[in-house]
Amino acid sequence: MSGGVSRRRLLGWTGAGAAVAGVGAVSGYTLGRSEPDVASPGADVVDFRGTYQAGITTPSQNELYFTALDLTSTGKAAVQRMLSQWTTAAERMTQGLETAEGGALPRNRESPPTDTGEALDLPPSSLTVTIGFGSTFFDKLGIPDRRPAALAELPPFAGDQLDPARTGGDICIQACANDPQVAVHAVRNLIRIGFGTTAVRWGQFGYGRTSSTSTQQPTARNLFGFKDGTHNLKAEEPDLLDEHVWVQGGDGPDWMTGGTYLVARRIRMHIETWDRASLDEQEAVIGRTKGTGAPLGGTGEFEPANYRSIDANGTPVIPVNSHIRVASAESLNGIKMLRRGFNFVTGSDDRGHLNAGLFFICFVRNPQTQFVPMQQALSANDAMREYIQHTGSAVFACPPGLREGEYWGQRLLEDAV
Amino acid sequence: MSGGVSRRRLLGWTGAGAAVAGVGAVSGYTLGRSEPDVASPGADVVDFRGTYQAGITTPSQNELYFTALDLTSTGKAAVQRMLSQWTTAAERMTQGLETAEGGALPRNRESPPTDTGEALDLPPSSLTVTIGFGSTFFDKLGIPDRRPAALAELPPFAGDQLDPARTGGDICIQACANDPQVAVHAVRNLIRIGFGTTAVRWGQFGYGRTSSTSTQQPTARNLFGFKDGTHNLKAEEPDLLDEHVWVQGGDGPDWMTGGTYLVARRIRMHIETWDRASLDEQEAVIGRTKGTGAPLGGTGEFEPANYRSIDANGTPVIPVNSHIRVASAESLNGIKMLRRGFNFVTGSDDRGHLNAGLFFICFVRNPQTQFVPMQQALSANDAMREYIQHTGSAVFACPPGLREGEYWGQRLLEDAV
Repeated sequence: MSGGVSRRRLLGWTGAGAAVAGVGAVSGYTLGRSEPDVASPGADVVDFRGTYQAGITTPSQNELYFTALDLTSTGKAAVQRMLSQWTTAAERMTQGLETAEGGALPRNRESPPTDTGEALDLPPSSLTVTIGFGSTFFDKLGIPDRRPAALAELPPFAGDQLDPARTGGDICIQACANDPQVAVHAVRNLIRIGFGTTAVRWGQFGYGRTSSTSTQQPTARNLFGFKDGTHNLKAEEPDLLDEHVWVQGGDGPDWMTGGTYLVARRIRMHIETWDRASLDEQEAVIGRTKGTGAPLGGTGEFEPANYRSIDANGTPVIPVNSHIRVASAESLNGIKMLRRGFNFVTGSDDRGHLNAGLFFICFVRNPQTQFVPMQQALSANDAMREYIQHTGSAVFACPPGLREGEYWGQRLLEDAV
Repeated sequence: MSGGVSRRRLLGWTGAGAAVAGVGAVSGYTLGRSEPDVASPGADVVDFRGTYQAGITTPSQNELYFTALDLTSTGKAAVQRMLSQWTTAAERMTQGLETAEGGALPRNRESPPTDTGEALDLPPSSLTVTIGFGSTFFDKLGIPDRRPAALAELPPFAGDQLDPARTGGDICIQACANDPQVAVHAVRNLIRIGFGTTAVRWGQFGYGRTSSTSTQQPTARNLFGFKDGTHNLKAEEPDLLDEHVWVQGGDGPDWMTGGTYLVARRIRMHIETWDRASLDEQEAVIGRTKGTGAPLGGTGEFEPANYRSIDANGTPVIPVNSHIRVASAESLNGIKMLRRGFNFVTGSDDRGHLNAGLFFICFVRNPQTQFVPMQQALSANDAMREYIQHTGSAVFACPPGLREGEYWGQRLLEDAV
């Protein structure tokens, strides 16, 4: 790996006192201009602190490593210490630094390095690290009264074949970056820091974003070959994000204000079966054309779908059980969500089929009133059911962004005496 | 590499309404892909035809999808037809095109698309597709006399824990690209074309090259955090490649002249154990410093290791069982190979450890006289043994590059009446 800009060069900028200006300039350069090639894209740094956690409305990076962990200690102080250490390490890593000064190459050579080192030469690569707390977190720490009502477990959905080994978890870490080595490095090092306090429950590698979360990104394609997330909520729509994504004051406990809920669903896609379906069938299942992504009957990708349109035989042009129709805000009383999923392929299964699919992630203000009714509708009516299977599931409460000096979960845990 | 804008890319860009605005973000697809000093890395096309197959000395891309397939038909004509179709499709995909004209969006809408479509908007991304034939290929087709002696099965090595489900195969496909979606798309579509003639035996996704195959690439790091492949053979060393990689006339059957042998080893790395070793221990195991990658006792990465150097106590500065020493040409009577491996992480195992490691690939002129003695030495003496386990293994004979109009395996199969 090379990257145009090494960590050392980035450090050089920092040393020159130009860190903040440099970062902003580089970001603006690659995102805003029509000459992206000249910049060193790997050098992009996403701000770690802010009103909201990064990695939610951040323009979706191309690579994901996601892990769910279980607490192995129920001592609140130990968990606070870990979250504080995670915060420091994560903030440094998003800047392209080691988890700690001299982490990979400690002066005390008889001690294990505190940074595993495989990202030493790599630029920040737009790394974001986002965390959330599962429902069980609150029980284990003896603070069930602090659990938001919205964090209730999901009901079973028709067709679910959830693998307990890919479901649930007390804490999640979502690391996204434009270099997979940077994303995996971040999670691996937080796991290490948490040793003795948490243990990994499951992990998921994802490549290829399937959702754009910014109007600056073109829509990407999922493994069915279709553009996915055309009408996703976007970073440039703050009013809609307030309405559908960010927890508002009064929604629940104060510590969640400015937070959001992450729903993860591992969706195995039976792509070999899909690949044998005709183009007509595929488009009828999705409700869009495969080429441009326009809604059936339309011509432009972003054109609103006309669900009233009928053909000469009186049949709806966009079939009633098509995926976009069943999942549409129109069919769901205005429900919207911010999707931020990734494709995955982890080799082949014992029938020689690609073990492939979509690691679906969405962020919502309330899973119970947004994700649940949507998934109930999809699991009952979506024509796509024939080609997919949900094999993992989890919900996490993601606290708001961090102020200077604050650590992840501080507002939750320090108030909970 | 040749520049040039692919048709797929043009279609992708002009197909989208906001083409110009989208360009920056389309490039964003490859942001952080770490191809140094390349203006627009996604646009790079690697020549499919030539003296040698692409994907061997091609500067190592960052992403891999590798699959091994078994023949389900033993009819030579069917296999020839498949290989011919594979050749056409692969050549097109390396140019950023669909597998066939109109493949993803067939005019006959009642037929399944022949291209699965998920790479429709993506640039060529330096895709290479490389194939090889396993020992069993020759038996199944009834042409054991055409099998090169060098393709004999590997002997068992001490410590091997090979999973039959990740071992062997009649044919392999190695797809490398700087966008994982492009690499997986290529393999998926060749699997589809082969349906009825071959079936997938196993597959492996890899991210993050661990070897540079060109002097233009900096050395990358593996999941132990060390630079890997410092003294790898390089594309810029044609004499050494002739000596160690390319099959020469007279080495074996004529159809293999200009070919090479691919040895794949799935090496699980116990990174949690490794991460608990001191920096001293880690460097002693490898024989290099973790920071610069210099051999112990040296200062520069590319400086020759001084295996005679001893410290004040008379102890070798580079331990006798260190990885680089055991694997060195000096210890192995001059054996060298072209390595082209990738990191992998496929989630966590049932103990909560990262299921991570190195998918080792090397190309050699003769596995029996190069890989086998090296691996015998490593499996007997390498200090790294404590931290790794070989869990998959396969060897393939990769035919030479293709002339215009030629298909993969043509020289092998058409002579074999």
